[in-house]
Amino acid sequence: MIEKYNIPTPKQKRVRIDEEISFDTFPCVLKVDLPIHKSDIGAVITNIQNIEELKKAKEIILNNLKKHNIEAKYLLIQEQIEGIELILGGKFDDIFEEVLILGAGGTLVEVIKDITYIDTNSDEEEIKKAIFKTKISKIFPEFRGKKYNLNALIDVIKKIQLMFKNENIVEFDINPLIINEKGAFAVDVRIKEGVKNKKKFTPKKYSLFENKNVAIIGASEKPIKVGYAIAKNALSSKANIYFVNPRLNELFGKKVYHSVDELPEIDTAVIAIPTKFVIETVEKLAQKGTKNIIVISAGFKEAGNKEGELKLKEIAENYGINLVGPNCLGIYNSEMELNLTFSKAPIKKGEIGIISQSGAVLTALLDKAYFYDIGFSHIISMGNMADYNFAHAINELNNQDSCKIISIYAEGLQFGKEFLKAIRNSKKPVLFFKAGKSEAAKKAAFSHTGNLAGNYEMIITLSEIAGAIIKPSVESLIFAPKYLDKKEAIIVTNAGGPGTILTDIVSEYKKIKDISEYINALNKVLPPTWSHNNPIDVIGDATSERYKNVLEILKNEELIFVIVTPQFMTDSVEIAKMLTNYKNTVPIFLGKESFKEAEKILEEKKLIYFTSLEDILRIL
Amino acid sequence: MIEKYNIPTPKQKRVRIDEEISFDTFPCVLKVDLPIHKSDIGAVITNIQNIEELKKAKEIILNNLKKHNIEAKYLLIQEQIEGIELILGGKFDDIFEEVLILGAGGTLVEVIKDITYIDTNSDEEEIKKAIFKTKISKIFPEFRGKKYNLNALIDVIKKIQLMFKNENIVEFDINPLIINEKGAFAVDVRIKEGVKNKKKFTPKKYSLFENKNVAIIGASEKPIKVGYAIAKNALSSKANIYFVNPRLNELFGKKVYHSVDELPEIDTAVIAIPTKFVIETVEKLAQKGTKNIIVISAGFKEAGNKEGELKLKEIAENYGINLVGPNCLGIYNSEMELNLTFSKAPIKKGEIGIISQSGAVLTALLDKAYFYDIGFSHIISMGNMADYNFAHAINELNNQDSCKIISIYAEGLQFGKEFLKAIRNSKKPVLFFKAGKSEAAKKAAFSHTGNLAGNYEMIITLSEIAGAIIKPSVESLIFAPKYLDKKEAIIVTNAGGPGTILTDIVSEYKKIKDISEYINALNKVLPPTWSHNNPIDVIGDATSERYKNVLEILKNEELIFVIVTPQFMTDSVEIAKMLTNYKNTVPIFLGKESFKEAEKILEEKKLIYFTSLEDILRIL
Repeated sequence: MIEKYNIPTPKQKRVRIDEEISFDTFPCVLKVDLPIHKSDIGAVITNIQNIEELKKAKEIILNNLKKHNIEAKYLLIQEQIEGIELILGGKFDDIFEEVLILGAGGTLVEVIKDITYIDTNSDEEEIKKAIFKTKISKIFPEFRGKKYNLNALIDVIKKIQLMFKNENIVEFDINPLIINEKGAFAVDVRIKEGVKNKKKFTPKKYSLFENKNVAIIGASEKPIKVGYAIAKNALSSKANIYFVNPRLNELFGKKVYHSVDELPEIDTAVIAIPTKFVIETVEKLAQKGTKNIIVISAGFKEAGNKEGELKLKEIAENYGINLVGPNCLGIYNSEMELNLTFSKAPIKKGEIGIISQSGAVLTALLDKAYFYDIGFSHIISMGNMADYNFAHAINELNNQDSCKIISIYAEGLQFGKEFLKAIRNSKKPVLFFKAGKSEAAKKAAFSHTGNLAGNYEMIITLSEIAGAIIKPSVESLIFAPKYLDKKEAIIVTNAGGPGTILTDIVSEYKKIKDISEYINALNKVLPPTWSHNNPIDVIGDATSERYKNVLEILKNEELIFVIVTPQFMTDSVEIAKMLTNYKNTVPIFLGKESFKEAEKILEEKKLIYFTSLEDILRIL
Repeated sequence: MIEKYNIPTPKQKRVRIDEEISFDTFPCVLKVDLPIHKSDIGAVITNIQNIEELKKAKEIILNNLKKHNIEAKYLLIQEQIEGIELILGGKFDDIFEEVLILGAGGTLVEVIKDITYIDTNSDEEEIKKAIFKTKISKIFPEFRGKKYNLNALIDVIKKIQLMFKNENIVEFDINPLIINEKGAFAVDVRIKEGVKNKKKFTPKKYSLFENKNVAIIGASEKPIKVGYAIAKNALSSKANIYFVNPRLNELFGKKVYHSVDELPEIDTAVIAIPTKFVIETVEKLAQKGTKNIIVISAGFKEAGNKEGELKLKEIAENYGINLVGPNCLGIYNSEMELNLTFSKAPIKKGEIGIISQSGAVLTALLDKAYFYDIGFSHIISMGNMADYNFAHAINELNNQDSCKIISIYAEGLQFGKEFLKAIRNSKKPVLFFKAGKSEAAKKAAFSHTGNLAGNYEMIITLSEIAGAIIKPSVESLIFAPKYLDKKEAIIVTNAGGPGTILTDIVSEYKKIKDISEYINALNKVLPPTWSHNNPIDVIGDATSERYKNVLEILKNEELIFVIVTPQFMTDSVEIAKMLTNYKNTVPIFLGKESFKEAEKILEEKKLIYFTSLEDILRIL
């Protein structure tokens, strides 16, 4: 296999145990040709300098094998390659299919775990990004006076990608893969063949956001029903809205159809009816040519009803439609001013396209977004993802011009390779938050969605390498977009300590700007003891006037964190009022008792402000 | 040196280059006896099996030395020890003096950096804690069928601690220290001798909190002056309070002394006067027998006035007094009901003793603490720490019975060994937050205090090993004490997603409790689709009644996070009201627009509640 894919190996020779041993390249290594931890039982001897030593080495190995009761037929003689040991392995993963694992090698690989993941579809640039996520990559291009050939490593990885994709291999290990100035050499290889169990991914034919004629199946007059909320939220849309309910004649002044059969031709249907009627209704709608079906109703996989879920998937595939859900909050399409969710908070028009696996997380985000005037171009609540999945959603949002940024909340993933492709091909930034990092959380996620949360590190690493922006907080998904293109930050503070702590937090995500250009101007408005540095410490006796003078000087800056601590002279109410005029600032009022009034002002103006430093993670 | 301290080494022999080579233990290793990276230039040959090979190895090494133009006089022959390579080094640190560094060895030590720090005063238990902070420690007691002798490693570390403490060594490296079943062997040792520049630490003779007769020097009638705030805050104390101000005769109905000389005997003085008068005033007070002097006035090291700062230190040492500050917020002593700070927010009596290097961070914390009814036994604002430092403060709080928990905010440290001793000897939990992790923040800290922030990892590791509880957020210092002894948490939520995210966050600090014992009881009050697991998902249609039923069942639990998302049936105001009756809950209302009323209720009741999941870090 290794030969077929032209992967460099040391010069080597396989000899039968009972045949005379010989080799022509020294130093060399002799080892038993068996898939075991050879060094642990003394079945590898290195640094063999000549034919006599080779013969002696054979005796020693045969002896050691005997001691451990291991039977072997062949020995392997290899040219000894000097260099640094890496390990390059591969595993067929439930989510991402063929995935490579690269890391520091040697006997301690298991304890050190300095590894990275590489998708078999990654190009050279991504492979490089992946390599440089390991600590061992610090050997490139040179380490302790010796050169290491990065290109040779990339070349081997590319060949292995091909091998893994093309062959019936479910697992393999190249351990060690020795790298030196000349190249990268596979010294020991173990391959496990098997059948890859791949799920078929079908790209979507229709846009989910072609919503001219929309039916709400299960529209209700009872305010405690989800079908009421959706009908009400949908009412003011530019689309034609049709209601269906067998018990009603009229709702919100509109005619109510008694069954799906009576409906005119529609492109989109939302289903909020008892579980037992869902499948037949979906089938009828699909037959009628409905292209987008959003199943709000629950009672499927999450409730143990796997059969019903499979049936939904089957219908969607048979008719080639978009089936979103089941067990979801709905969708929103700003271009049609169409809110097909049962969100309590209204939804404002904006530039974020959000894709959420959890309806509740989405609800909470929408509630905050409305308060803080954050708008959305599109919303897709994914629910159980019987059919429509993350890859479909990302591709869809890429086709929507009004969506400028894509935010994803995920617990588990399906079709990982397609997910990575969608991220890779995205013309818009993709923000990504993944729940289920800890073992305890994985258990929780499984119990509430029936989905395996997957290997957190693998999902995060592969997504980041493919181009996703990994977010530290779920609220970043709605708060961070506003600050995403602001790469440099200035901190203005009336106290040094909090400035230092904030610098720790912010500097992981933004550059702490060099403010040399402002020093002269700042000298004129600040007391001589100011910090002369970013954070700009305006000193504890700063009043709103002094803060204002500083902000005037910085008025062309894009991102200024303004820390206010309750110092003796701090006129916090005036500072709060003043700050409402500076759109480039993020106010942080570190206190509570002294800031009751100031908080009210910020709250009324719906400013995004903070009262804790760590909270800033929300916008980073 | 290694012999003197009885540190095991392989059998070895030093031979002159021009003498005949011989050795009697094989396999052995031959190397040049020079303090260079030998393996990089081919000056080490391993696995030598007999005398002929040894001679050949000598030739090769001499050749390689010649090639690199290196002159040498001696070669070293060593018994070859098989095992795992560690590195044990030591450095004389500005803060912690003698510190050991232990980690995975081998050529890649520089890139892998799997290291831990060990204080030379650490006992066996601490040494073990330190060792198990490395990844390489997974080899103990057994790795891949081979045993590794942990006790031998501990023994070597103990001997090295002694050596480093006793000898004029400023730096050393044992690389490698090879560990196997039989022991731990120093194979190659490099020692740098030199003079250790140790600063003298003087323990305090008097308690800082003997405050019966207290003078406020610089008491003022002008509300914009710090001297006004301190005088006012101090007024209601059980102590006798004396005011000093040359311009005033009366303040708050009390006599004002015109100079320090006129004062009766006092034990404690707070100084809030212009910088230029501080030193002479401190000296006069010390002469009068004042034992505790708190210098609020700034204008010393932080303003470039190092000389003044040194003078303060000198006076404190000469008179053996406690000199707190300069440039600080003051102190608070709950037993005397004595608030000697200029904090805006009043201070409530409680069980936390807080020590803060930053006055502003303290101010912000006090402001929140007052609002949320969090009280303090003692407060010490450290300021520049010209004299009184963290070790003094920790020891002091240990002598105060009313202090049950010690919280420390630090930027830089001094007298690290004494700091660690104080933590080690503390009978009370010590919570520790250290600012200045990032390079950018270190720069900021330096510019505002003139203190070097030090090596963050070293400070955190050593402190944790000595027994400090490292906190993830500065606000934890006041919010976490209440939850510190609550080891197990239950999460109750009306939505799965947020439950999963919170589990990720909480499980790093608390155990996610096994709730098997409650399953039957919960089955009776929850719909059949509830999660049957912790997090307890009470399902999206949960009302306050359902939440209440669950909380009744859990009423004996110590820590319950209650997540409320704005679902369709969520009566958030009723839930908020209901929650105020359950003292064992931490409410998390994930939303904003829908929760305006609920927030008001929680705010009015001064409940510690949250609106973001990540915010929970504050109490962990």
